[in-house]
Amino acid sequence: MSDIQKLSAPVPPGGTIGILGGGQLGRMLALAAARLGLKAHIYSNESDAPAFQVSAAHTMGWYDDEAALKAFAEQCDAITFEFENVPSEAIALLSQFKPTNPNAKALMIGQDRLEEKTFVRKLGIKTAEYAAVDSASDINLAITKVGAPAILKTRRLGYDGKGQAKVRSADETVRALESFKGAPALLEDFVDFAFEASLIAARGLDGSFAAYDPPENIHGDHILRKSTVPSRLTPAQIAEARNIAKRIAEALDYVGVLCVELFATKDGALLVNEIAPRVHNSGHWTLEACAISQFEQHIRAVAGWPLGDPARHSNAVMENIIGDDAANWLKLAKGGGALHLYGKSNIRKGRKMGHVTKLSAKS
Amino acid sequence: MSDIQKLSAPVPPGGTIGILGGGQLGRMLALAAARLGLKAHIYSNESDAPAFQVSAAHTMGWYDDEAALKAFAEQCDAITFEFENVPSEAIALLSQFKPTNPNAKALMIGQDRLEEKTFVRKLGIKTAEYAAVDSASDINLAITKVGAPAILKTRRLGYDGKGQAKVRSADETVRALESFKGAPALLEDFVDFAFEASLIAARGLDGSFAAYDPPENIHGDHILRKSTVPSRLTPAQIAEARNIAKRIAEALDYVGVLCVELFATKDGALLVNEIAPRVHNSGHWTLEACAISQFEQHIRAVAGWPLGDPARHSNAVMENIIGDDAANWLKLAKGGGALHLYGKSNIRKGRKMGHVTKLSAKS
Repeated sequence: MSDIQKLSAPVPPGGTIGILGGGQLGRMLALAAARLGLKAHIYSNESDAPAFQVSAAHTMGWYDDEAALKAFAEQCDAITFEFENVPSEAIALLSQFKPTNPNAKALMIGQDRLEEKTFVRKLGIKTAEYAAVDSASDINLAITKVGAPAILKTRRLGYDGKGQAKVRSADETVRALESFKGAPALLEDFVDFAFEASLIAARGLDGSFAAYDPPENIHGDHILRKSTVPSRLTPAQIAEARNIAKRIAEALDYVGVLCVELFATKDGALLVNEIAPRVHNSGHWTLEACAISQFEQHIRAVAGWPLGDPARHSNAVMENIIGDDAANWLKLAKGGGALHLYGKSNIRKGRKMGHVTKLSAKS
Repeated sequence: MSDIQKLSAPVPPGGTIGILGGGQLGRMLALAAARLGLKAHIYSNESDAPAFQVSAAHTMGWYDDEAALKAFAEQCDAITFEFENVPSEAIALLSQFKPTNPNAKALMIGQDRLEEKTFVRKLGIKTAEYAAVDSASDINLAITKVGAPAILKTRRLGYDGKGQAKVRSADETVRALESFKGAPALLEDFVDFAFEASLIAARGLDGSFAAYDPPENIHGDHILRKSTVPSRLTPAQIAEARNIAKRIAEALDYVGVLCVELFATKDGALLVNEIAPRVHNSGHWTLEACAISQFEQHIRAVAGWPLGDPARHSNAVMENIIGDDAANWLKLAKGGGALHLYGKSNIRKGRKMGHVTKLSAKS
C-alpha cells in the first residue's frame, strides 16, 4: 500500500475527520466539524491538548510513531493538520491510508521558507528579495544581494517570530546564524511596508475556490495582535491578492484553507511574505463576521464537501489575548465583543490564550 | 447538606459546566461553553447522545440514579439542563451539591402546563382561556368555560405536539383524554392567531436582562419548521414581548436563557402559549445572526458571567431539517446557508436532525 489515498465521495455526516495537532486551531476545527455532524479525532503529543476537550476521540502519540499514526488513520475517514510544523513524514505516511489534505507538497512548501519563496517567485509573484544562508560563508554574498537592514530567518520550524533576527551588518548576521545553532537560514530584505494584510481562501476537492475579504494585520513582537476587516487594500489590490492565492492554490493542487501573508508596500505593490497551509489566526474574525468560518470551510474542503459562501456580513476587529492578558478574562467577557478562550491550562508569556472579535455594520 | 448552592463567583475558564441531557441543545450548549474556555460534562441516559461527541466528559446514567447524579455534581462547577422534561427531583438533588440553574421553580412551571398558565395569569399576562381536566367528570365544565374547538393537552411531558389533540365536542374530549391514559390534562381555547412568535431572553446571576429580537415561527405537525427574524410584530408588540419575558424571569428569580412562545392574535394582542426554561429551537438563528448566540448566553448566565450583547446584525431565516430531510445533507450543504447537523446516529420520522440558517442584510 503506497499510493496516496484520494476521497472518492464526500465524508458523510457521522464520519470522522482526523486532525493532527491539538492546539487552538485543532480545537476550532473540531468545533466546526461538529456543526456539520462530523466527528473529530485529534492526534497530539500533548496530554492536555485543548482540542481533546471538544472531540469525539483523541490519540496521544508522537508524530514519528508509525504504529500509532496508522491506528489513528484507520479510525478516520479523512485527515488534516492544524499546523505546518508536523513532520512531513507523518503526513506522507497517513496519506497512504486515508485521504490527507492539504497535500505533502503544500506542507513541504509551508515548512521551508526557501522552498516557499522559490515556489512563489516561479509563479511570477513578488516577494521580498532573499538569499539562502546555509553557513557563515554565504553571508557576504547574501548581504550583497539582499542589502541591509535585513531579516535572518531559519528556513524551517519558525512561527510567531521564533528563529528570526533583524540584522544590520555581516557581523550581526554571523551572530544571528550562530544563535540558530547552525540551522540553515534565509536572509530577507527588510520590507518597509505600508501595512500587512493576509488573504485567506479555500480550494475544494472539485477545484472550486472561495476567498474571504482580506484583513489588515498588526504584529507586535512578531505575534499577530490585531486583524481588521475591511483593510486599506484597494479593490484592485484585493483582486490581485485573490488572484495570488488562487494561483498558489492551483499550482499546489491544494485542498483546504490556506493563508497568504502579504506586505502592502508604500508604492502599492503586494509582496508575499509567507504561505500558511492551514487555517490562520488572521482569519479568526470569520467566526462571527461570516456565516461560514474559515474553520468550517477547511473541514468542508478536506471532507470533500462543497465550499460554503465566504461572504462577510459585518466589519470586524479581532484582537488576540496573549499571555497574562488572559487573566483579565472577566473584564474581556464584559467588553461587548465575542470572547474566545482556548482551554489552555497554563498561561505563558507570548502564548496565544484566546481572542476577541468586535463586529460593526458593514462598510 | 440540604441548602441550595449558589454561585459566589463566576466559574473561571477551565471550569466545568454540567449539562443534563445530551441532545442537540446540550450539544450546542457544549460547543458554546468551549468558545469560552469552559469544559462541558454531559449527563444523559442515552449511550450515543449527540453531545457526548463534543464534550470534555460525559456520564451515562439514569435521571433517578442518585449516586450517579451526586458523582456527576462533584465533577462540575455549575450545572444546567437542556430540556424541561428531566425529573425535577434530579434538579433538586443536584442543587444541593452545586449551583444549578434555571432553578427548580422555573423547571416545575415549565413542566406543567396548568402551573405555567396559572403563574402567567397571576402576573397579569394574557394567555388563551383554559381549564384543568383531571378526569372525564371535568370535561363538561371545562368546555363551558373554554368553548370549542379547543386543544386538550397533557399537563406534563409534552413537546413537539406529543400529548395534544384538537377537540370539537365533549365526546371528542373524552376520547382524547382516554388516549392520554388518564394523565391529568388541560383544555385550552383554540386560538385563531394571526401568527406565532417567540421571545428568547436571558437573565444573569446579577439580575441583568438581555432579550433577542423575537422571531416569527411556523409549525407543521406541531413541530417548529421555520423561524424568521424580523417578525411581523410591531415595535410596540416587541416591547410588550420583552416586558412579558422580563416579568416572568424576575418572578421566577430566573438565571439562564428562557423562551416565551407567543400567539399574536388578529386584534393585536399577545398571548403567552408556553414558557420553555431553556434554550429554544426558535433561537437557533442567533448562532449566525448575533455575535453571542442563545447557547453562549445561557452558558454565560449559568456560569455567573456577564451576559453578552444580544444585538442582531443580520436578518435570518432558520429552517429545521426533520426526519428524512437529513438524507439530503449534500444538497443542503450546497444551498448557501449555514448548515447544522446534530450528530444523531439514526434518522427517525419527526426527529430534529439539523437546521439551516440563511442570513440577509439587516432590515
